[in-house]
Amino acid sequence: MQQTQFYRDLFISYLKQFISAKEPENLYNPIHYILDLGGKRLRPVLTLMTADIFEGDHKEALNAALAIEVFHNFSLIHDDIMDEAPLRRGKETVHEKWDLNTGILSGDAMLIMAYQLFESYKPKTFQALAKLFSKTALQVCEGQQYDIDFETRDDVTIPEYLKMIEYKTAVLVGAAMKMGAIVANASASCQNTIYEFGKNLGIAFQLQDDYLDAFGNPETFGKQVGGDIIENKKTYLYLKALEFSSDKNKNEIESLMKDSILLNDDKVKVAKQFFVESGSAEATKQEIEKYTKLAFSVLKTLNISEEKKLLLQQFGEDLMVRNR
Amino acid sequence: MQQTQFYRDLFISYLKQFISAKEPENLYNPIHYILDLGGKRLRPVLTLMTADIFEGDHKEALNAALAIEVFHNFSLIHDDIMDEAPLRRGKETVHEKWDLNTGILSGDAMLIMAYQLFESYKPKTFQALAKLFSKTALQVCEGQQYDIDFETRDDVTIPEYLKMIEYKTAVLVGAAMKMGAIVANASASCQNTIYEFGKNLGIAFQLQDDYLDAFGNPETFGKQVGGDIIENKKTYLYLKALEFSSDKNKNEIESLMKDSILLNDDKVKVAKQFFVESGSAEATKQEIEKYTKLAFSVLKTLNISEEKKLLLQQFGEDLMVRNR
Repeated sequence: MQQTQFYRDLFISYLKQFISAKEPENLYNPIHYILDLGGKRLRPVLTLMTADIFEGDHKEALNAALAIEVFHNFSLIHDDIMDEAPLRRGKETVHEKWDLNTGILSGDAMLIMAYQLFESYKPKTFQALAKLFSKTALQVCEGQQYDIDFETRDDVTIPEYLKMIEYKTAVLVGAAMKMGAIVANASASCQNTIYEFGKNLGIAFQLQDDYLDAFGNPETFGKQVGGDIIENKKTYLYLKALEFSSDKNKNEIESLMKDSILLNDDKVKVAKQFFVESGSAEATKQEIEKYTKLAFSVLKTLNISEEKKLLLQQFGEDLMVRNR
Repeated sequence: MQQTQFYRDLFISYLKQFISAKEPENLYNPIHYILDLGGKRLRPVLTLMTADIFEGDHKEALNAALAIEVFHNFSLIHDDIMDEAPLRRGKETVHEKWDLNTGILSGDAMLIMAYQLFESYKPKTFQALAKLFSKTALQVCEGQQYDIDFETRDDVTIPEYLKMIEYKTAVLVGAAMKMGAIVANASASCQNTIYEFGKNLGIAFQLQDDYLDAFGNPETFGKQVGGDIIENKKTYLYLKALEFSSDKNKNEIESLMKDSILLNDDKVKVAKQFFVESGSAEATKQEIEKYTKLAFSVLKTLNISEEKKLLLQQFGEDLMVRNR
């Protein structure tokens, strides 16, 4: 989409400006490294786009967009430590390339730098942005904690899982858009509606991530297909499969997931078959559809031109037909 | 000091109110644990006291004081991970009692919660407090990074060391006091002066910490006397001793510090002797005196009653005659 590319290019050139040599090097080099690793820049693009949609100036939203991206990358550094992940976007993670302490400290500095990016705004806007940011950032931490807690729990419910992905992933998408609306001085009602749009789209996006992790095309997915299955993750696919199963099948899938003798490829194959046969694969697709439609129906209530609604809808659709 | 006790008691009861059960437990319990561990509550007391000194209301400064204390404890959790410290205030550190991931994530949440505590203030005050907070917090991270960098460097200079302790410790004392002045609506000039007072007192305090670590009374010091020597830390005492020494003596002390065969007690004994004989112990005492006097001379320029100046001076003196 041409429009999206415009915002992305603008954002990336602004980001490059932000990345400049600073002392102490061992603190700032890892920050520049992760910010320079690439990624879709989805969240900052949404901030800029939303500012324009509410008749604001996207250039004024650049610092808010950057704050969102810096925060997102902070959370990647700390999450990668917690997950002991060796790779991020095909490159070494910060704690791998440097060490644990560097990962912790550089992440901390990024969280603070995100707040500093709001300082260019007038006091009232500053407070509105920082307040939304803090609330969202704390929810992201809570979501991460639920995710960790779920690893050792055998009684995770679907509503609990949905709350976890809402906190860990979706609220930041909502907040990215709401920040664009705040900078554009949109009404409180518009701010809340666009937040709900972004949040529901974010939930749909994360559910699709779960789905593609198992059923994505290995050639385009980017990550290892079946990664969640190999790591025994309690995804929507898995929880729904348990819900749909008889006690006998339930025991079978539970022992399959905990199995450490089976070859990974075989484990993935059996689990996928189970997801399909239990009806969980189909139910997951329906849930993705449900949240996507919810986002679009929220959009309809918004008091902006049809043209702009179409722009947002188009963006949402592009996002949901991705194969990676 | 009666006055100090009044502020401390008030602060502690406010802190207790702040600590209430929240979900997810595994995120918030460690936060409550560290905040409940005690400590001198020096920084928040300074915030409350300073608000009163500038004719403000110390009760209005409670949230700013709490933000400072929450931030300070966030930095303790993450520093303890980096230092692999098993104990904090005689109790298990967070990453020991729980685990690494809990230490990282609960610390992150505390940093965000500190910012949230400013939300009760009006937009202009909010922005002033958050801006000062971000600047200070980032300096604390930079100070911690310099401290880590120094571990593997053999050419640390005294000015570099002073900058490190200024960033890692002293600016937060200055900021704690400036926040009290901001809440009390003191003039910009008063705000800056009280910041300088706090910062210089903070440097003196940290230098004294270095001094007491070697020469404190084991019965009252609280920590293991000689801990810095055992850990081969490049303290002011050590750097000054090198500066005062002939090349031969320099080599001797450098190999003593790196010695891993010598018993700890013997290493401490020899190092202390070296600090005394080289004149470094005396020079350190003089440097402490220098920064204390600097703080008091800054105080003299402040446009407040003599009575209030005396209160601050008294506080500073009490701080500096401590034996732990």
